[in-house]
Amino acid sequence: MIRARFALMVAYPDLEARFHRLSALRHALGVLQWDWAAMMPTGGAAARAEQIAAIKVVCHDLISDPAVGDLLGRAEQDRASLDEWQQANLVEMRRHWIHETALDGRLVEALSRAASACEQSWRLARPAADFAMVQPLLAELLALVREAGAAKAARLDCSPYDALLDEYEPGGRAADIEPVFDHLARALPLLCARVLERQSGAPAVVRPLGPFPIERQKALGVAIMRTLGFDFEHGRLDTSLHPFCGGMPDDVRITTRYDEADFVKALMGVIHETGHAQYERGLPAAWRYQPVGRARGMSVDESQSLLMEMQAGRSRAFLDYLAPLARLHLGGDGPGWDTDNLHRLYTEVKPDFIRVDADEVTYPAHVILRFRLERALIAGELALADLPAAWNAGMKQLLGIEPPSDREGCLQDIHWFDGAWGYFPTYTLGAMTAAQLFEAAGRALPGLGEAIGAGDFAPLLGWLRTNVHQHGSRLSTRELLIRATGRPLDPTIFERHLEARYLG
Amino acid sequence: MIRARFALMVAYPDLEARFHRLSALRHALGVLQWDWAAMMPTGGAAARAEQIAAIKVVCHDLISDPAVGDLLGRAEQDRASLDEWQQANLVEMRRHWIHETALDGRLVEALSRAASACEQSWRLARPAADFAMVQPLLAELLALVREAGAAKAARLDCSPYDALLDEYEPGGRAADIEPVFDHLARALPLLCARVLERQSGAPAVVRPLGPFPIERQKALGVAIMRTLGFDFEHGRLDTSLHPFCGGMPDDVRITTRYDEADFVKALMGVIHETGHAQYERGLPAAWRYQPVGRARGMSVDESQSLLMEMQAGRSRAFLDYLAPLARLHLGGDGPGWDTDNLHRLYTEVKPDFIRVDADEVTYPAHVILRFRLERALIAGELALADLPAAWNAGMKQLLGIEPPSDREGCLQDIHWFDGAWGYFPTYTLGAMTAAQLFEAAGRALPGLGEAIGAGDFAPLLGWLRTNVHQHGSRLSTRELLIRATGRPLDPTIFERHLEARYLG
Repeated sequence: MIRARFALMVAYPDLEARFHRLSALRHALGVLQWDWAAMMPTGGAAARAEQIAAIKVVCHDLISDPAVGDLLGRAEQDRASLDEWQQANLVEMRRHWIHETALDGRLVEALSRAASACEQSWRLARPAADFAMVQPLLAELLALVREAGAAKAARLDCSPYDALLDEYEPGGRAADIEPVFDHLARALPLLCARVLERQSGAPAVVRPLGPFPIERQKALGVAIMRTLGFDFEHGRLDTSLHPFCGGMPDDVRITTRYDEADFVKALMGVIHETGHAQYERGLPAAWRYQPVGRARGMSVDESQSLLMEMQAGRSRAFLDYLAPLARLHLGGDGPGWDTDNLHRLYTEVKPDFIRVDADEVTYPAHVILRFRLERALIAGELALADLPAAWNAGMKQLLGIEPPSDREGCLQDIHWFDGAWGYFPTYTLGAMTAAQLFEAAGRALPGLGEAIGAGDFAPLLGWLRTNVHQHGSRLSTRELLIRATGRPLDPTIFERHLEARYLG
Repeated sequence: MIRARFALMVAYPDLEARFHRLSALRHALGVLQWDWAAMMPTGGAAARAEQIAAIKVVCHDLISDPAVGDLLGRAEQDRASLDEWQQANLVEMRRHWIHETALDGRLVEALSRAASACEQSWRLARPAADFAMVQPLLAELLALVREAGAAKAARLDCSPYDALLDEYEPGGRAADIEPVFDHLARALPLLCARVLERQSGAPAVVRPLGPFPIERQKALGVAIMRTLGFDFEHGRLDTSLHPFCGGMPDDVRITTRYDEADFVKALMGVIHETGHAQYERGLPAAWRYQPVGRARGMSVDESQSLLMEMQAGRSRAFLDYLAPLARLHLGGDGPGWDTDNLHRLYTEVKPDFIRVDADEVTYPAHVILRFRLERALIAGELALADLPAAWNAGMKQLLGIEPPSDREGCLQDIHWFDGAWGYFPTYTLGAMTAAQLFEAAGRALPGLGEAIGAGDFAPLLGWLRTNVHQHGSRLSTRELLIRATGRPLDPTIFERHLEARYLG
């Protein structure tokens, strides 16, 4: 009896030690993947794929050790002896364990290799606008992703698509997302038409004339990152084809891409990724190496980047602050550089092909398209060969435009080619969450707009630290949002935000 | 019987699969360590130490799996069925297995963490010239290194120092090195005095006046790397406090450090690290993920960098090629920039404090000092607190000068603070090996000097690929040298080279 009690008592610390090692390996992967995108010479790709696969297989082996299942069972039996954080950590351990043990080592390794190979091929196929070039490797990857989805579905008792989605959005289900997205797909075209109508009556947007040298754009980006509170002792800004936030919380690596003809994109990219970086950095340090210390899920994660980019970053108050700084760094002068025009530029709505450059009114259409297509591909209802045509038809239906080539169509995003299926819906869930959080922050902080207008992000960051970041994965997404804003996700707040900004 | 035969047959392929994974993890470590030195923000150090320790422990666990010992025994029983490369690979597997299993997991992890912590402290102590600042962490690290040396010594049947040396220089023994070094310690001061005497009669060296902007120095470095045959599809040049060659053979990362007042150091650093990089890149690709595919040992490795930097790079022929290129890139003009003066500048002999900046005549003194000190520290015959004084006394004895502070003394090199004990002698073994290989290459390639003078390194690189690089670890250092040059290491060739260049 004493022995059994002891076995219970040591189960949880033993699990913590195992997950500590797993987290350190996961952080190493974060650095290797950042390097892959930001630093690695092309010829290093095959070897890097080996490195990443080796670490993933090791992680899989560590978590699939039969002892872990036993330890989880014993620790759960004795959960009453754990404090609230430890209990939440145990729930997350079980969740990761289910996801990981649903796949055998062979599938984990095959997925890692197929994703690396397909991504590398995509890097050539995208500029060449040649979907056929990448299709065979994508087909191979998709087959493995479907196999993984089916294996996880059996363990999670849901559809294969939901099982994939669950990895990015714990507890998220397509059946809950579909009606929200269908509603948006109906409502936003009307809203968009009204905004376009209104914009046509406003002074025409004057585009500041470049070229804007990359070094100057970067200096402006760094200045804005400092304003937002980015800690360069614990992070870097670099360049990559597809902007992202990587690394790990104590060493956050964000990237952007520069266009010498247009500074708006790179700068808003920097603000966006800084939002992600602040979330990472604000996660509970005491739980850095445990599952409960991670970001809650991708919709919360994306809410943090979109809150910075869309809610705060494109507010009139912030643009009033930004405009003189941009003029200073980029040597701006003449028409196009006055604050009213820059405000119109930064809140310009225009249906276009590229998701990452889309305004917040048309952005959901890009996501809804991908959500529908990836569900159909995973369900086997759409053949990969038909993807480009289906993409173009969807764009026509949702935004009324058709991409000139697959480069501006189904080849534009890295996600599918990198093995991230079930990820896309979190962007729009994140946009809605961002609107709801920013509204709540505004209620809690009466002088918020003025502070942002003065380049003082401390109050906003403080509120986010307290209400979002510091919780890590302790609460469910739903509970986090209820505690922070008083209610579960309410899409009407997002719609009201769009109406207020673009039609108010 | 059939079953036993089958067990023998599968033992070797099973080992290859295990070492493949180990190699991929080792390559990942190479990238993480490069990033640590070249990219990582300071605040990432503690987390990176966790990542590196986690991977090292995983590697240790993989190789310490009792099954590996069994497999090695079975594969060795059946070695007649293996081809020559496989047999050599098996020998290397056993060698790595002995080194790795001599230490328990606790010690591996403690060493990794202590090295990371001590190195990080050294990064602050060095500029502050404050040995006392780093001494406690160095003491902790040294205690663990001595423990590791003792544990390995028991398995290798040699002294603890030899056991540490063996990791860098397989088969190397202090008793063989000592007489060679003692001879050099006696002979070189006389040679040095004669060179200084002769130099005092030559026109004074004129130092080209800087500042030389870093971007221009880098462009010149890149141009020379291309001349030497560095493949930028499979490598990068970056900046770090202590120049090194890292990464892995398909993705070689070299670094240098720049001084705006002096372009010579950074440029020769680039040439030096390019020599290492070419060795890495030329290792047998078919054995990339096996022990036999690795560099033979540090003396051979160092011979490749010194062959490029000292033998070829400071030859009159190459300096004739380099001078106009340097003038072009750095905007050089006036006295100091003519080729005769640049030749005098690049072959200037001057006893000084910093090893990495030392000329080839005084360099061995730096190494002999470190060799003697580290042997005494490992043997417990010198207390760490007495290291600065012993260092300064040794410099006085060997080179006749005394460092103004520990920054120019015992704090100058990263090695001890990073856990690399038993490494230093390989520099001078490498210098002697380089002289011997370059002499042999000159005999085999009659037009070598002219080719180098025309910036054509293809013949030299081809000879090195054939006679050194492609062998990986298939031959012992001794055998490699005999096959390439007709005899084992012969220190008189190095001395003759110095006499010919500096007194000829």
